[in-house]
Amino acid sequence: MFTYDVLIKNGSITTSGDYYKADIGIKDGKIKDISDKIDPASAKEVFDASGKILIPGGIDVHTHLDMPFGGTFSSDNFETGTKAAAIGGTTSIIDYAVQPKGKTLNETIDIWNGKAKDKAVIDYGFHLAVTKLNDTTREELPELLKNGFPSFKVFMVYEGMRLEDGELMEILKIAKDNDGLVCVHAENYDSINYRIKNLLDEGKTEPIYHAISRPQKCEAEATNRAVKLAEMLDAPIYIVHVSNGEAADIITASRKHGFKTMGETCPQYLLLSIDNYREEGFNGAKYVMSPPLRDASNHKLLWDDLRLGDLQTVATDHCPFFMEQKRMGENDFTKIPNGAPGIESRMALIHHFGVNGGNISMERFVELTSTNPAKIFGMYPDKGTIAVNSDADIVVFDPDKEVTISVDNLHEEVDYTPYEGFKVKGYPVATFSRGELIAEDGKYIGEEGRGLLLKRGKPEIQ
Amino acid sequence: MFTYDVLIKNGSITTSGDYYKADIGIKDGKIKDISDKIDPASAKEVFDASGKILIPGGIDVHTHLDMPFGGTFSSDNFETGTKAAAIGGTTSIIDYAVQPKGKTLNETIDIWNGKAKDKAVIDYGFHLAVTKLNDTTREELPELLKNGFPSFKVFMVYEGMRLEDGELMEILKIAKDNDGLVCVHAENYDSINYRIKNLLDEGKTEPIYHAISRPQKCEAEATNRAVKLAEMLDAPIYIVHVSNGEAADIITASRKHGFKTMGETCPQYLLLSIDNYREEGFNGAKYVMSPPLRDASNHKLLWDDLRLGDLQTVATDHCPFFMEQKRMGENDFTKIPNGAPGIESRMALIHHFGVNGGNISMERFVELTSTNPAKIFGMYPDKGTIAVNSDADIVVFDPDKEVTISVDNLHEEVDYTPYEGFKVKGYPVATFSRGELIAEDGKYIGEEGRGLLLKRGKPEIQ
Amino acid sequence: MFTYDVLIKNGSITTSGDYYKADIGIKDGKIKDISDKIDPASAKEVFDASGKILIPGGIDVHTHLDMPFGGTFSSDNFETGTKAAAIGGTTSIIDYAVQPKGKTLNETIDIWNGKAKDKAVIDYGFHLAVTKLNDTTREELPELLKNGFPSFKVFMVYEGMRLEDGELMEILKIAKDNDGLVCVHAENYDSINYRIKNLLDEGKTEPIYHAISRPQKCEAEATNRAVKLAEMLDAPIYIVHVSNGEAADIITASRKHGFKTMGETCPQYLLLSIDNYREEGFNGAKYVMSPPLRDASNHKLLWDDLRLGDLQTVATDHCPFFMEQKRMGENDFTKIPNGAPGIESRMALIHHFGVNGGNISMERFVELTSTNPAKIFGMYPDKGTIAVNSDADIVVFDPDKEVTISVDNLHEEVDYTPYEGFKVKGYPVATFSRGELIAEDGKYIGEEGRGLLLKRGKPEIQ
Amino acid sequence: MFTYDVLIKNGSITTSGDYYKADIGIKDGKIKDISDKIDPASAKEVFDASGKILIPGGIDVHTHLDMPFGGTFSSDNFETGTKAAAIGGTTSIIDYAVQPKGKTLNETIDIWNGKAKDKAVIDYGFHLAVTKLNDTTREELPELLKNGFPSFKVFMVYEGMRLEDGELMEILKIAKDNDGLVCVHAENYDSINYRIKNLLDEGKTEPIYHAISRPQKCEAEATNRAVKLAEMLDAPIYIVHVSNGEAADIITASRKHGFKTMGETCPQYLLLSIDNYREEGFNGAKYVMSPPLRDASNHKLLWDDLRLGDLQTVATDHCPFFMEQKRMGENDFTKIPNGAPGIESRMALIHHFGVNGGNISMERFVELTSTNPAKIFGMYPDKGTIAVNSDADIVVFDPDKEVTISVDNLHEEVDYTPYEGFKVKGYPVATFSRGELIAEDGKYIGEEGRGLLLKRGKPEIQ
Repeated sequence: MFTYDVLIKNGSITTSGDYYKADIGIKDGKIKDISDKIDPASAKEVFDASGKILIPGGIDVHTHLDMPFGGTFSSDNFETGTKAAAIGGTTSIIDYAVQPKGKTLNETIDIWNGKAKDKAVIDYGFHLAVTKLNDTTREELPELLKNGFPSFKVFMVYEGMRLEDGELMEILKIAKDNDGLVCVHAENYDSINYRIKNLLDEGKTEPIYHAISRPQKCEAEATNRAVKLAEMLDAPIYIVHVSNGEAADIITASRKHGFKTMGETCPQYLLLSIDNYREEGFNGAKYVMSPPLRDASNHKLLWDDLRLGDLQTVATDHCPFFMEQKRMGENDFTKIPNGAPGIESRMALIHHFGVNGGNISMERFVELTSTNPAKIFGMYPDKGTIAVNSDADIVVFDPDKEVTISVDNLHEEVDYTPYEGFKVKGYPVATFSRGELIAEDGKYIGEEGRGLLLKRGKPEIQ
Repeated sequence: MFTYDVLIKNGSITTSGDYYKADIGIKDGKIKDISDKIDPASAKEVFDASGKILIPGGIDVHTHLDMPFGGTFSSDNFETGTKAAAIGGTTSIIDYAVQPKGKTLNETIDIWNGKAKDKAVIDYGFHLAVTKLNDTTREELPELLKNGFPSFKVFMVYEGMRLEDGELMEILKIAKDNDGLVCVHAENYDSINYRIKNLLDEGKTEPIYHAISRPQKCEAEATNRAVKLAEMLDAPIYIVHVSNGEAADIITASRKHGFKTMGETCPQYLLLSIDNYREEGFNGAKYVMSPPLRDASNHKLLWDDLRLGDLQTVATDHCPFFMEQKRMGENDFTKIPNGAPGIESRMALIHHFGVNGGNISMERFVELTSTNPAKIFGMYPDKGTIAVNSDADIVVFDPDKEVTISVDNLHEEVDYTPYEGFKVKGYPVATFSRGELIAEDGKYIGEEGRGLLLKRGKPEIQ
Repeated sequence: MFTYDVLIKNGSITTSGDYYKADIGIKDGKIKDISDKIDPASAKEVFDASGKILIPGGIDVHTHLDMPFGGTFSSDNFETGTKAAAIGGTTSIIDYAVQPKGKTLNETIDIWNGKAKDKAVIDYGFHLAVTKLNDTTREELPELLKNGFPSFKVFMVYEGMRLEDGELMEILKIAKDNDGLVCVHAENYDSINYRIKNLLDEGKTEPIYHAISRPQKCEAEATNRAVKLAEMLDAPIYIVHVSNGEAADIITASRKHGFKTMGETCPQYLLLSIDNYREEGFNGAKYVMSPPLRDASNHKLLWDDLRLGDLQTVATDHCPFFMEQKRMGENDFTKIPNGAPGIESRMALIHHFGVNGGNISMERFVELTSTNPAKIFGMYPDKGTIAVNSDADIVVFDPDKEVTISVDNLHEEVDYTPYEGFKVKGYPVATFSRGELIAEDGKYIGEEGRGLLLKRGKPEIQ
Repeated sequence: MFTYDVLIKNGSITTSGDYYKADIGIKDGKIKDISDKIDPASAKEVFDASGKILIPGGIDVHTHLDMPFGGTFSSDNFETGTKAAAIGGTTSIIDYAVQPKGKTLNETIDIWNGKAKDKAVIDYGFHLAVTKLNDTTREELPELLKNGFPSFKVFMVYEGMRLEDGELMEILKIAKDNDGLVCVHAENYDSINYRIKNLLDEGKTEPIYHAISRPQKCEAEATNRAVKLAEMLDAPIYIVHVSNGEAADIITASRKHGFKTMGETCPQYLLLSIDNYREEGFNGAKYVMSPPLRDASNHKLLWDDLRLGDLQTVATDHCPFFMEQKRMGENDFTKIPNGAPGIESRMALIHHFGVNGGNISMERFVELTSTNPAKIFGMYPDKGTIAVNSDADIVVFDPDKEVTISVDNLHEEVDYTPYEGFKVKGYPVATFSRGELIAEDGKYIGEEGRGLLLKRGKPEIQ
C-alpha cells in the first residue's frame, strides 16, 4: 500500500503568492502533502521535477469549442481542443454554451455537455450565454446560478444573440441577487452595422475593414455602458476580451470607485496588432476576431494593467477556423468566421512576454492564468493553486526550454497559428490533471474523454 | 434727419472679452457707432444708462414653447414666453421644433413657425428635433442645415421620439458633412424603463421616484455614448442640459483629446437639487424634468466647468406646466409632464450666483449666456455681442437692483417658479431688441408679434 | 526521536494567495511539512488550531523603539516593544536606526544593535536612516546595501536629520546601483517652518496646530518631489506613512507610468482623523505624529488603495511616549514628542476594519501586513508566508474573538492607546516565532532576548 | 481742428471676444470711436486698413533686455529690443528687473528704468525679480505691489537668485495680501546640480547635455511644488515658460480644483524640440535656454492647453546672445548664456501655427498674446484690447502676407533666430502705439525713446 499515488519531487513551486522548493504527494487526485522531503518509496509513481517550476494548471475561462458560427463550426471540438490545452499547460476550461434560438438554458447545458462529455480530456465548465430573456430563462437563471453555473454571458452584439441594455440590466440584477457573475462581450452593435453598411457600399471588403468597422471607441463605448449599468445596480460585472487601454481604463476607474468590476484580456491583444490585417493575400483573415486587434501602442497599456491588477485574467477566446472556413468571407469581411486559435500557446506566451519581458512577476503570471480565473469563477480552491487538498492539476514548466511557436508543433485542430514564428523561452513539459500525468513533451498521454463537468461555486470578486 | 434712431448714453459695456464705458449709436436696428461721446442731438431717442451695465441680449438656445407633451402643452406659448424672456433680458431663443409622427422636417418648420409667427416678440430660431430618420429626412437634412437651420436635435430617450445609436451616428455624419451641429438629449432609455417598471411595481409613485428612475449614471452613460459615437466620426456634438459633474467630465475629456464636443447646463442644475423632490405634498412635481435634479455636490463641479470653459453655454430648457397639468401624474410620477419654467430668470440668476458668487467673471457671464450661444448656433455676429454692425440687442442691467424672485413678479405663463424666494442682486431693467426698447422695469412695452424667424449660419465650434 | 519539534493541527491556513486547511510540521524553526494530516505522534509538541486561522507572522516594517526624540526616548525599548508586538501577532520588525550626528553608518548599526540584542524577543532588522551624506557614508552604503541592509531611509524634514533634494537623488542612485531601496519620509520642510513660525507668533500652541502646521498638501508636495526625483533616475522608492489620498494618488500615477514606486500606510491614517486633535484638555497630544492625522474622508481613499494594490504595506510607525513626555509640549505643540503607539494592535485593527469591514480580502490582509513587507524588504521567503522551508513564524488567529482595545489589555510601554474603546472581532491568540510558541492569550511566554538580527536580501519590487 | 488725430479705416477688428468691420477714430493716443463709417475728413491722418485685420498690440510679458547673465549681457537693449518688438507687432513688454546683490527693490527699479528710459520705444513695465528676502524687501514689497508693480518674480533656480520654498511661500502670502501676483521660474535646483556634476565628470559638455541636465520632470516637480505652496495659502500664482504637458497638467488640475493658478508658454516650446540641440557643430547652443526644449510630443499637448484655456498666455522669454557670447560655453554647456531671441516673431508664429494650423481661433490668439497678459498683469483696459478709451495700441495684420522668417529680415540685435526658415502666412505690417504709427513694413518709423514706464494696476486672475 502506497501513501501516495504520485510523488512530484524536487520541483520549485510557484503559486500566486509564493515560490519555494518542495515535494508534492498526491492521492486520489488531490494534493495531500507538500513537504521538504517525501520518501520516494511512499509513492506508486515518482516524477522528478528537478530544475523545473511547478505551477497550478492553467485555466482558460474563455473558449469556444465546437461552436456554431455563421453556418460553420469552430474547428476544435472538445477532444482536440482540450488535448491541445493539456499539452499547453491548461487543465481546466470554461466554454461558452450559447443558448440556441428556441432552447431553454437547461437544454443548452444538455446540448453543450453532449459536445463535451466523453470527449474533453480536462475538466470543463460552461458559462451560459443567454440570448433570450423570457419567463423561462428568468425562472431558470437563479436555479442555475446557485447550482454550478454561477456565471453567465451577455452579448451586446451579434444579431439573434445580443440583448438590449434593459435586458442586460435585468440579468445583472438577477446575477447579483443570486451570487452570480455576468460576463459581457462589449461592443456597440449599431455603430458596427452603420460602419459595415458604409464600408461594403464603398466596396471595402478586405479583412482590414473588419477592424475598421469596429474601432477601439466602439468597444470602449460599450464597455462603459455595461459598466455603468452594473454600477447603477452595484452588481458585479466581468468584461471579456478587453483589447485596448481606453476600454481598460473604464474598468480601472470603476474599481477605483469601489465597484465590483473586472476585466479579462487575451494574448492576441498583448502581442498582435491591427497591422496584421494588412498581411498579404487573404492572410489578414487569420486575425479576424471580435473585438479586432488594435494599434500596438495598446500592448504596453494592457501589460501595465495586468501588472497592477487593473485587469484580472488572461484567457484566449480560442475559436479556431481553418483557412478554408475563413474563405467564406473572401469577398466580404463580414462573412469571415470570427475567431482564432490560442488555447495551446497561452501559458508559454504570457510567461515569456510577461515574465521574461519584465512586465509581470512569476507569481502574477500564475494569478492571471490560474488563480484569479479559479477564484472569480467559483472553482477555487479545487482549482487555481498548488495547496493541500486542491486538485492535483499541476504543470511542470521548464523555464529554460526554448520553442519557436509554429502550427507544426501545436496540436490545435486548425492549419495556422497567429503566433507563427514567435520565440519563447520557458514551456510546459508535463501536465498533471487530478494527479494523472496526461501530457508530456508535447504529446497527450492520458485517457480519452476523462474530463469532468465542473459544478462551480460562488464567485469571489477579485 | 437724425444720424441715429436711438442713442444709449453713459453705459458700461461688457462683452465676452471687454468692459469699458461708451455711448452706443443705433440705426435701423443695428449698432452703428460705439464712441467715447455721442451728441444726444444726433439721435431721435436717447436712453440714459448711467450707472448701468450694457450687455448683449441674452440668448436662450433651449426652450420649449407651446410644446405638446403627454397629452397637454407647455403653458407658455410664443407670445407669453418671449415676453417673459424679453423682460428677463433675453432677446433671442432657439426653440426645439419636434418632428411630429408622420411629418417631414419642412412641415415641422411650418408647424412650429405657425406657432411662433406674429406671436413671438423677440427673434427666434428652431433646432429641428428629428424623431424619424427615413429617406425623406435624409434628403431634407443637408438642405436645411445649409439654409438657416444648422442645428438639429436627437433624443436618446422618449418612446416615439428617440433614435437608435446607428441613426444618431448617421445624423452626426450628415451634420458633419454639411457644417451642421447635432444637439443630443442624453439619457439611457432602456435603464429608465427598467427602473420605472420596478418602481411602479413596488408602488413607488411620488415625484422623488422620477429622479430615482433616471440617476446620474444613466445620463453619464448616454453622454459618453453620444460623445464616443461623435468621436468615431470626428463630428461636432453638443450635449444639452448637462446636469452633473460625472457627465460634464466626459465632455471635458473629449475636448482635451481634441474633439469638437460641447455642453450646455441650466440654472436648475446649478441651483436646485434632488432634495427639492422631497418637498411636502405634491410640490416635488414642480421640479420634474429630465434629466432630473441631482445631488447638490454637483453645483460646484458645474460652476467650475463654466468658469474654465469646459461647458460652453447656460440655457434654460424652459418648459412650464401649471400645477394643474402636473397633477396628471399625481398617482404616477411617469405621468407628470416633464419641465419647469426658467426663461425669465436665467440672466439674473446666473449673474447673481455666478458673478456675485465669485464663480465666474462678468465677461464669462456674457460669453455663457449670449456670445457662445450665438457663435455655436450660427447667429454671430448679428447676435451675441455689442459691436459695430451687430443687431442692437442690448440689455440694460442694473448691478445694484435687488430682487426676490417670485411667481408674483415674473411673467411666465405658469403658477410657480422653482426659484421662489431666491434673492438676487443685479437685474435687467430695460431690453432693446434690434434697437427697439421692448421691455422696461418689468413690463413688456414693445409691439406685438415683432419677433423674426432667424435663418442661422454655420456653427462656430467653441 | 520526533520528526517534528512542533505540529500545528487542524488550522485554516491563509497566505497572500491561498486559503486551505492543513497540518503544519515544524522542525528546527522551519516549516517542513504542510499536509492534509500529520500524525500527532510524530511531534514533540502538538498545538491544536481547530477553528482558528493560521497566518504568517505579522511584519511591521516601521517602528521606532528606544528612539531619541527631542531630548527624550520613545518609551518602548526593544524588549517591551517586541513583546507587545509578539502578543499582537507580529514576529518581525524593521526598526529605523537613525544615524547620530558624527557617527558612521556602521557605528549606527552597532549602536542600534546594542539596543536590540538580548532584548528583542522577535527577529528584527534595521533601515539605516542616513542623516549625513559624506564620503564615509558614500563608501559604506554600497557595502551595507549588499550585506544585509538593503533599505535606507531619508528624511525630508527634521533639522539635523533631513537631506536636501540633491542628496536624496544621490542616495536613490546609490541604492538603485546596489539593488537597494530608499524609504522616504516626505513632508515639505520649509513650509512647515513657515507655518510654525506664524502659528506660534499668533499664540497658537495647542496640539491641533501641529496638524495645521503640516497640512495634507505639505505631504503631497514632498511625496511628488521624492517620486519625481526617483522617476528621473528610474530608481525604486518607497514612501513611508502615506496619510492621505492626495499623496497616495501620486504613487498610483507613478506606478501606472511604469515606475518602481511603492507606498505604506498605517492604521492611524485609516481609523483616526484630524478631529482627534480637538479632544478635550491636552488629549490631542496623544495623536501628535508626523505626518499628522487627516480629514476622515481619506479613510475610504486609503482603503481603496490598499484593496487595489496601489499601496503595498501597512506598518505602524510605532513610536510611543507617555503622556508625561508629551507634556513637554504643553505650551508649544512643536515640543510635543512626535509619535504614538500601535505595534500591538495593528493586526487586529487591520483585520477587523479591513476584512470584516469589507474593504479587503483575508488574503490581501496577509499580503499587506506580512508578505509584501517581507518581499519588499528582502526577508522573503524566510519570512512573510506559510510555506515549506520558510521560518515557522505563524500567528494563530481566532476570527471569533471579540476584544475591546484598551490600554488595559495592551502590553506596550505607554499609558494610552489611540484606539481606546475600538471593538474588533478577530484577534491573535497565539504566536510562533521560528517554531517557538512565544505568546499565547495575551501573555508573552517565550524566552527573553531571543530575537535575531535579520540580514536581509535583495528587495523585490511589488 | 480735427476730431481725430488718426483714423484707421476699413479694417477688420478682432478682439479676444469679437470680430467685425469698423473704422477707428483715435485722439490723444486713445481710441475714441469705433464706428461703421467715420468721415476721413474728420482726421488729421487716415490709415487705410482694407483687407487687413486689426488686433490689439501684442503684449510680451516675459522679456530680458540688457540683462546681465554669467558675465555678459543679453544683446538686445531696450532700444533695439523694443524696436524689434514694435516691428513684430508688440506694443508693450514687461521686463524682468532682477534685484542685484545688495540692492533694494526700489534701487532695482531705478537701475532697470535707467536702462529703459529714453531708449524703449514702446511702453514697458517691470516684474521685480526678488532675489533676497530680508526686512527691507519685506517692507518694500507691499508698497510696490500697490503702486504700479503688482507682479513679482521668484526663481527656484540659479545660485544667488533663487529663493527657498519658505521664502517663496512668504512672498506668495505678501502678494496675496496686497492683491499682487507672483511669477515663478520652476525648476528643481538640486537635481540640476546633481546632474550637471555627473555629466561634467563624464566629460559630457555639449549643448545637448544642457537639456539632459534639466529634464522635463525636473520642471514638473518644481511646478508642482510652487503650485502646492500657493494652494496651501490659496494665493494666486503664475508659472512662467511652461515647456511641456506634464508641467501644464499640474496647472490644469490646480485650476480645476478652484485655485488661482495660471501658466504661460512660449513659441519655442510649441515649435522647437530637444532635437535642435543636436544640430551640427556648436549650433545647438542657439537653443540653450531654461527650461530647455522638450520632446516634440509636447507641442500638441501645449496647443491643446492654449486652445482650452488651461494655459493663459504666450510670451517669449526673449533673451538673445550673439553666437560669440554663446561660445563662452563651447567646452562646458553650463557656461553657455541661457536664452534665445523671439520678441519680434512671436505674433506671426503664434498666428500662423496656431490659427492657420487649426489649433486656436483668431479670438483666442488675441486673448493669449494681448488681452490675457493685459488683464493678468494689471494693464487692462488701457492695454490688451481695441475698445473705446483704450490706448490706441493697434497692430495692422495682413493675413495674406507670406514671410520666411530669417535673421536677415528680423531686427533683433543678435546674429541668428531659432526660427530660421520657418514660413508663415500672416504678418504684422503696421504698428500703432498710443495712436502713433511707429512701425510699417518692417521698419521702425517712430520717435526715439518714446516708450513710457507702465504703472500697473490690480491683476485680474484669468
